[in-house]
Amino acid sequence: MSSPVDTFIEYAEKNQEAYIDRLRKAVAIPSVSGDPAYRKEVFRMGEFLIDELKALGASVETRDPGVQDFHGTPLPLPPIVLATIGTDPAKKTVLVYGHYDVQPALKEDGWNTDPFELVEDEKHRLIGRGSSDDKGPVLGWINVVEAHKELGLELPVNLKFCLEGMEESGSEGLDDIIFNEADKYFKDVDVVSISDNYWLGTTKPCVTYGLRGVSYFHLTVKGPKADLHSGVFGATIHEPMTDLFAVMSKLVTPKGKILIPGIYDNVLAVSAEEEKTYDDLSFTMQELHDAVGNEINIHDSVKDTLQHRWRFPSLSLHGVEGAFYNPGDKTVIPARVVGKFSIRTVPDMEPKQITELVEKYVNEEFAKLGSKNTMSISCTHAGNHWVASPNHWNYVAASNAVEKVFGVKPDLTREGGSIPVTLSFQDALKKNVLLLPMGRGDDGAHSTNEKLDRSNYVSGIKLLGTYLYEVAEAKPE
Amino acid sequence: MSSPVDTFIEYAEKNQEAYIDRLRKAVAIPSVSGDPAYRKEVFRMGEFLIDELKALGASVETRDPGVQDFHGTPLPLPPIVLATIGTDPAKKTVLVYGHYDVQPALKEDGWNTDPFELVEDEKHRLIGRGSSDDKGPVLGWINVVEAHKELGLELPVNLKFCLEGMEESGSEGLDDIIFNEADKYFKDVDVVSISDNYWLGTTKPCVTYGLRGVSYFHLTVKGPKADLHSGVFGATIHEPMTDLFAVMSKLVTPKGKILIPGIYDNVLAVSAEEEKTYDDLSFTMQELHDAVGNEINIHDSVKDTLQHRWRFPSLSLHGVEGAFYNPGDKTVIPARVVGKFSIRTVPDMEPKQITELVEKYVNEEFAKLGSKNTMSISCTHAGNHWVASPNHWNYVAASNAVEKVFGVKPDLTREGGSIPVTLSFQDALKKNVLLLPMGRGDDGAHSTNEKLDRSNYVSGIKLLGTYLYEVAEAKPE
Ligand SMILES: [Zn+2]
Ligand SMILES: [Zn+2]
Ligand SMILES: [Zn+2]
Ligand SMILES: [Zn+2]
Repeated sequence: MSSPVDTFIEYAEKNQEAYIDRLRKAVAIPSVSGDPAYRKEVFRMGEFLIDELKALGASVETRDPGVQDFHGTPLPLPPIVLATIGTDPAKKTVLVYGHYDVQPALKEDGWNTDPFELVEDEKHRLIGRGSSDDKGPVLGWINVVEAHKELGLELPVNLKFCLEGMEESGSEGLDDIIFNEADKYFKDVDVVSISDNYWLGTTKPCVTYGLRGVSYFHLTVKGPKADLHSGVFGATIHEPMTDLFAVMSKLVTPKGKILIPGIYDNVLAVSAEEEKTYDDLSFTMQELHDAVGNEINIHDSVKDTLQHRWRFPSLSLHGVEGAFYNPGDKTVIPARVVGKFSIRTVPDMEPKQITELVEKYVNEEFAKLGSKNTMSISCTHAGNHWVASPNHWNYVAASNAVEKVFGVKPDLTREGGSIPVTLSFQDALKKNVLLLPMGRGDDGAHSTNEKLDRSNYVSGIKLLGTYLYEVAEAKPE
Repeated sequence: MSSPVDTFIEYAEKNQEAYIDRLRKAVAIPSVSGDPAYRKEVFRMGEFLIDELKALGASVETRDPGVQDFHGTPLPLPPIVLATIGTDPAKKTVLVYGHYDVQPALKEDGWNTDPFELVEDEKHRLIGRGSSDDKGPVLGWINVVEAHKELGLELPVNLKFCLEGMEESGSEGLDDIIFNEADKYFKDVDVVSISDNYWLGTTKPCVTYGLRGVSYFHLTVKGPKADLHSGVFGATIHEPMTDLFAVMSKLVTPKGKILIPGIYDNVLAVSAEEEKTYDDLSFTMQELHDAVGNEINIHDSVKDTLQHRWRFPSLSLHGVEGAFYNPGDKTVIPARVVGKFSIRTVPDMEPKQITELVEKYVNEEFAKLGSKNTMSISCTHAGNHWVASPNHWNYVAASNAVEKVFGVKPDLTREGGSIPVTLSFQDALKKNVLLLPMGRGDDGAHSTNEKLDRSNYVSGIKLLGTYLYEVAEAKPE
């Protein structure tokens, strides 16, 4: 007789058509959180998940995040769905997070098929909005629970769900609920597992233990009281755009080096142990070129490229508010311009200190200009970086599960972007958080023709279930 | 018995209410050329002028500039109205140009009154869209003709009109007609007079003999094939925005000095004669501060300020196409950005040479960056500068007329902006062109609450008529 985990894996392999049917139903609900016209569909998607979870015997509760102020219009926020399967004090408790809203998608954006109709193409890619981000992974967990119910097997751990419907729109209201429930609904949680990111490449699974933070800045230069005609005033007054470009051009070099003094002082050096993790990552420079669509890499090696993506800071200029931005020609002198830039941050940079360094530097650089305009700088958002220990038993459990299902050791990765809920769970619950992705690096989560490969979906279901067994067997230090 | 010109001046003074009534009728026609919804009103305004001119005995013809392509919608262009009063070969022929379309205006833009209802306030300002730009001046000429008709006086010169209805929207179709009619309808023209600019300040009349040209540039930097996420790609690829800001920050200093080598080489030095014309201009630094709404002057004297406005080049940065421009935060790496800037040009700068200098310099500066992105620069528009001799008998006639009507010598001014039709008439007809403004510097031609002071309207009518007598008496060298 085979072990419960093998029984589960075998069952999952056989039942994949049912799992795809479930994903098809979920994708058919256009739960776009960013468009008020679809808000009722987000609610409908929440109901869909509540029904599925209840049918599997979960005890389900919801939390109401209240009302969103959408450019002056009040919009009800979809519920945070909390579900519990098993409350055995002898078992560990795993909290899984996912989101049931999706990015906007219109056929005319360039989709080859209706974005809200799941289709499988000749390469066995399941194409549809939300297939990979994040309905596939959320249903992955539900499929694991269903398999155990059908097989008459007990889950090896207690499972708690936290599912939100506003992730693609800033997770409004979620943080308050996480912190509020930390010692209530989430009291017994031992570890957290989130499947909302992607493999580094397309062939090898990974576990992800770090994310960069981001500090966003607005650099405002004000001069005239209203926009002026450059014919009348050019070369006679200090122009805000000239000052803005002078200061913003001093922030970062074309090779990506940040010019703000002190900004690198607290960046941790790469340890020997970390250095090794870059040795056989499943990633090539060709994959970078393909993703970018051009060979404009700054660094020549995979290691340098990924270290700069994951664990060194970067500074990007995003745009200018208040200046001319349309096609065509306009000879305006804009009166007030706001330059937007952000710094991706890494351990042990401190958001507060970063803001101080930026303020000091841009003030000094502006003073050098001798301009009579006024400049101000503000940090409009500061989300901290996050890093977990990849040696924690939760990560070891995930790594073992990958080896069992895929026959390879996973890549140990970080990401250059941020997934704010990761930090929220870690700060609120003080438990290890694991990022365990289901999809591939080329799924196109926020793009047209988003897909989840059939093999990733099915293997992902096996992985999530196997991970629970590995968690159950792990010996916390 | 008084002279004809004195009789005319006396008559004009007495008939001002009728002139204001005529202006009221014209302002009531919302001939906004920039908004297709008002196109029929532009035609109606053309008809209004044709009727007025015919009633005064003018022989009127029209030219059809054809059809405008308004963002894909074909829109009929309003007619160029050509009118002739007098064909006496013994007299000189003066061509007057004006436009009968106006800038858009909505009460909610901040007008205190209905913009298309002429009202006179307690300061005797005639407030309404087009009052000063350019219906007041156009009717000024018509009032001169009417006065002579009523008085039974012959005009001292032959008068030709060229009135267009698309000036505020790029004068579409006008140039072709001017060049086509140069040796036909405009064959006998001796001098041209245009009343479509303004006094330097608010108290003293001026004649204007120069305009700056403008060359507009698009600096395009292309990198990735689509916008990228700065979390994923920051510090790993060459970012187009970083390159764009690096190059655009090298174009001009915060004090307005253009950094393109050779750009000043062909700028004419200020002659002793020209230097003197700055000595008692009716302008103060306070007027600059008031117009700008802030004390951000680069130069401390009126002379330096006006020389930099009128007869030295300037370079302004206008904006960026393709970058993030909305309020709020967005962490995009824009894939393709187009920086917009323009250079105001003066004698003897050559548009072609300017483009070459700009191309050479930005290519060199971009090469210094060592970026793998691609950069291209193009001149999208090049309108030449214009300058006439203020010693030409046409200017002397205008100056004499100012002295007779206002009792002061006019300011001799230039403008920093361009009025392209000026150059078209000069190039096509090879005759002296005079700019003889009616309104004041604070009329707010393109702003809310546009006005024309009653005294400027009435004195302007006297001035235009008197100018014709001075032209008649002038002895061409
Ligand atoms: Zn997601
Ligand atoms: Zn997403
Ligand atoms: Zn005008
Ligand atoms: Zn105008």
